[in-house]
Amino acid sequence: MNLPPDLQGAFAAYERALASDDVAALDDAFAPGPDTLRGDADGLLVGHDAISAFRGTRGGITPRVLDRVEYRRLADDCWLIVATSRYQGGGTGLQTQVWQRSDGRWRITAAHVTGRTPSFDRSVWRTVGDPLYQGAFEGPLLGLRVAVKDVFAVRGYRIGAGNPVWLREAARERQHAPAVLDLLKGGASVRGLARTDEFAYSIAGANPHYGTPANGALPGALPGGSSSGPATAVATGQADVGLGSDTAGSIRVPASYQGLWGLRTTHGLVPRQGMAPLAPSFDTVGWLTRDGATLEAVATWCLEDDAPLLPSRRVVPVEVLRLVEPATRESFEAWAAGTVEEIEVGPLDAWFEAFRVVQAAEAWRAHGTWIEAHPDAVGPGVRERFATARDVTAEQEAVARAEVERLASVIQAIADDAVVVLPTTPGPAPSRTASADELDRVRAATLRMTAVAGIGGLPALSVPLLRFPSPLGTAPVGVCFVGPRGSDLSLVRHARSLEGPA
Amino acid sequence: MNLPPDLQGAFAAYERALASDDVAALDDAFAPGPDTLRGDADGLLVGHDAISAFRGTRGGITPRVLDRVEYRRLADDCWLIVATSRYQGGGTGLQTQVWQRSDGRWRITAAHVTGRTPSFDRSVWRTVGDPLYQGAFEGPLLGLRVAVKDVFAVRGYRIGAGNPVWLREAARERQHAPAVLDLLKGGASVRGLARTDEFAYSIAGANPHYGTPANGALPGALPGGSSSGPATAVATGQADVGLGSDTAGSIRVPASYQGLWGLRTTHGLVPRQGMAPLAPSFDTVGWLTRDGATLEAVATWCLEDDAPLLPSRRVVPVEVLRLVEPATRESFEAWAAGTVEEIEVGPLDAWFEAFRVVQAAEAWRAHGTWIEAHPDAVGPGVRERFATARDVTAEQEAVARAEVERLASVIQAIADDAVVVLPTTPGPAPSRTASADELDRVRAATLRMTAVAGIGGLPALSVPLLRFPSPLGTAPVGVCFVGPRGSDLSLVRHARSLEGPA
Repeated sequence: MNLPPDLQGAFAAYERALASDDVAALDDAFAPGPDTLRGDADGLLVGHDAISAFRGTRGGITPRVLDRVEYRRLADDCWLIVATSRYQGGGTGLQTQVWQRSDGRWRITAAHVTGRTPSFDRSVWRTVGDPLYQGAFEGPLLGLRVAVKDVFAVRGYRIGAGNPVWLREAARERQHAPAVLDLLKGGASVRGLARTDEFAYSIAGANPHYGTPANGALPGALPGGSSSGPATAVATGQADVGLGSDTAGSIRVPASYQGLWGLRTTHGLVPRQGMAPLAPSFDTVGWLTRDGATLEAVATWCLEDDAPLLPSRRVVPVEVLRLVEPATRESFEAWAAGTVEEIEVGPLDAWFEAFRVVQAAEAWRAHGTWIEAHPDAVGPGVRERFATARDVTAEQEAVARAEVERLASVIQAIADDAVVVLPTTPGPAPSRTASADELDRVRAATLRMTAVAGIGGLPALSVPLLRFPSPLGTAPVGVCFVGPRGSDLSLVRHARSLEGPA
Repeated sequence: MNLPPDLQGAFAAYERALASDDVAALDDAFAPGPDTLRGDADGLLVGHDAISAFRGTRGGITPRVLDRVEYRRLADDCWLIVATSRYQGGGTGLQTQVWQRSDGRWRITAAHVTGRTPSFDRSVWRTVGDPLYQGAFEGPLLGLRVAVKDVFAVRGYRIGAGNPVWLREAARERQHAPAVLDLLKGGASVRGLARTDEFAYSIAGANPHYGTPANGALPGALPGGSSSGPATAVATGQADVGLGSDTAGSIRVPASYQGLWGLRTTHGLVPRQGMAPLAPSFDTVGWLTRDGATLEAVATWCLEDDAPLLPSRRVVPVEVLRLVEPATRESFEAWAAGTVEEIEVGPLDAWFEAFRVVQAAEAWRAHGTWIEAHPDAVGPGVRERFATARDVTAEQEAVARAEVERLASVIQAIADDAVVVLPTTPGPAPSRTASADELDRVRAATLRMTAVAGIGGLPALSVPLLRFPSPLGTAPVGVCFVGPRGSDLSLVRHARSLEGPA
């Protein structure tokens, strides 16, 4: 049976609209309403609005020609069209569409699209191998594939730090960073070098040079950063362990956004040699995993097993509860179920401001010379932060540093007496289509929450314990456990005990 | 509207069958007949038989749980089910199914499946980067991404030669093979190290250790080898140039099977330093591309531009026409359209046998010590060839070598007088489900055709000029142009002139 001529026309018009990225025509080709479906490797969009929002940010498709078109009549006003395509530059694609006629118009009510397979996802990885670097042939980490954030030295490779000009000028590393070597010695292997926000100086997970990794837990959402590549690699099963760094939340935030376990270790506990610095007073090494067992295995291997026991009290700063989104607070309080006392730590603005100024001064000290020599090399957001960092005066830094020291003793005293628990982020991952203003608001709120452990140099573990509806679907948010210095392993074991029997 | 209970049951039963890889139940869940569809990233299968054959070789899926299930009634006896899934070990999938009721039974009449995204395809690549190795920042090859067959030295990497034990014992290369360096100097960059059949000693393109790459032109077919990884990388758009080696067809065969241009260069023309040998008397370097323009750019850069003009006569060995599959012969003769004279070159068995014995003796000389030290390291097929190679006596080798020399002068004299044209392979790529016996037959016929240029040390260019129906769909077969020694560039230009105006 042949395709009805008017459907043939609608199908051809849709193909033309695709080729010219005519967003209005594409929007019109999909049936309106909340039932329309469109899915691809990044996930399933439900409803015309979600599909339309996605399309607005996609920016067209690679030119291709249809190769084979199969169609099947399913009912009088309902046909299935399945087509393969050949892309310019090689590769094939597949599209499945359900077309239905309503009010005399043929429209797509469901679509499933498979694009051509890239050699790898350059938004997630810079280089990958099977393995890229073989670890020891025995050890407790045998079989674990590590995504190394592109701020660590891997022998024979350069450090890219998320910036292509930096990468081009970098020399090949002569030896592994200790944090890399430790994992290799335990039997883990390096799967690849994974992307980071530029100089790790952002928490959104967007990189203007290499693209923004997908969120492995929430299609259409930002991945979180700056350890964006390791987090997405782990969340999507492309690696088992993400080796990251966390200055102001760069492990905790992507862990929260992507439903992962993420440990920022005690400041100074894991050596930072062979790691590109951002702000050494706060820079730490840490790991992202899909489950607590893997994180415990890694932490047990990499850390001394002498972590102090945790206090049995749990407290949450009330200033954090006032700051987070209502749904997050509600979900957190339901989880806490009265087991967590509220305490006051003072205005979070003060924590953030002291942290920000010292971080900026140190970031400029680390990278200012290079930034001034390459004024156009860095993308928006990070560029502005460095511009602000340049203007921090010695006096401002001294004042902020004194405040950091004072606040550090405040939070350290609290953590000696109680585990501090709080939502890791104000809410779920923002949409990839969020405005710059909205992202600035999220960033400001997030850093007010992450700065507390940062200032204290304390270990902070994000555990995927909250899950609630969001505009993009059911979204994870982490609960962050902050313990006294050196309690890293105890934090992991404590959180695992909350999982209940497997 | 809710899913009808009996459909709900059928869907649940299908999921259980998937989880347990119950092939019979899966087969039964798909509607019988030639109209049933199943597609994924590797292509579209049409008809229950094709789907069933695919399933028999897949060997089950990674365990996963359904995450979100959307269903839509399309007609009384027709429903759409779209489901996302979460894989054990991370990653998400998407499946779209059309279920129709016939004779009281719900069955799938169309399915589109997207599995989780791997970090990269380890059947195609060993290591990839963006780039893995940067080339010169200017040059005529700027922007071209090269898939380097894993028999060439790339500085800092080991040569794997398609075997994991060999790889483990290999040392890191101190410098690039000249064939690699040349491309880098021209502005091309190395995208990655691509898979090969073990020790390049096969033409099927299957590797028991890393899997068999997909055929980028013919879903469900073998890719051809031994330059299987570079060929698939180029055919699927994951690279633009495949750097390969060709001893007995290892560039020409995958080019023919995947619709690519593939040039085996004149023996000795491109230096073979830094390349793992198979049989040095026949080993050559060459390139695979999607189009003639790219191949001409590469050959022009890498070769001296002093190629002799080609004779205007064209001849085809009648023994080859008698050997190839009827459809291939028909298609070739339609293409030749009376412009190609038939000649006799004598029994192809004699060409093959002389070639085979010398190749075997040299392969044993190159790898015999290692093979004897690692009797279990090599997979089937290649293992048996090495076992045979071990038994070649010095006398057998001497006799074969004399015969090779005699035949070389025969074909060289022919090629001085006429371009030899022939189908590159006996037929299209065999199915991935072909039996070992069938593959042996194909191999035997193929080597009888490829040995002619191999013995002569002549350049041989496979051009994707034939296309005809095959059991797996419309399939490409190459036409091979064999010219006098050193005529490589003229062959490419001659073939390009056949393309007509762009």
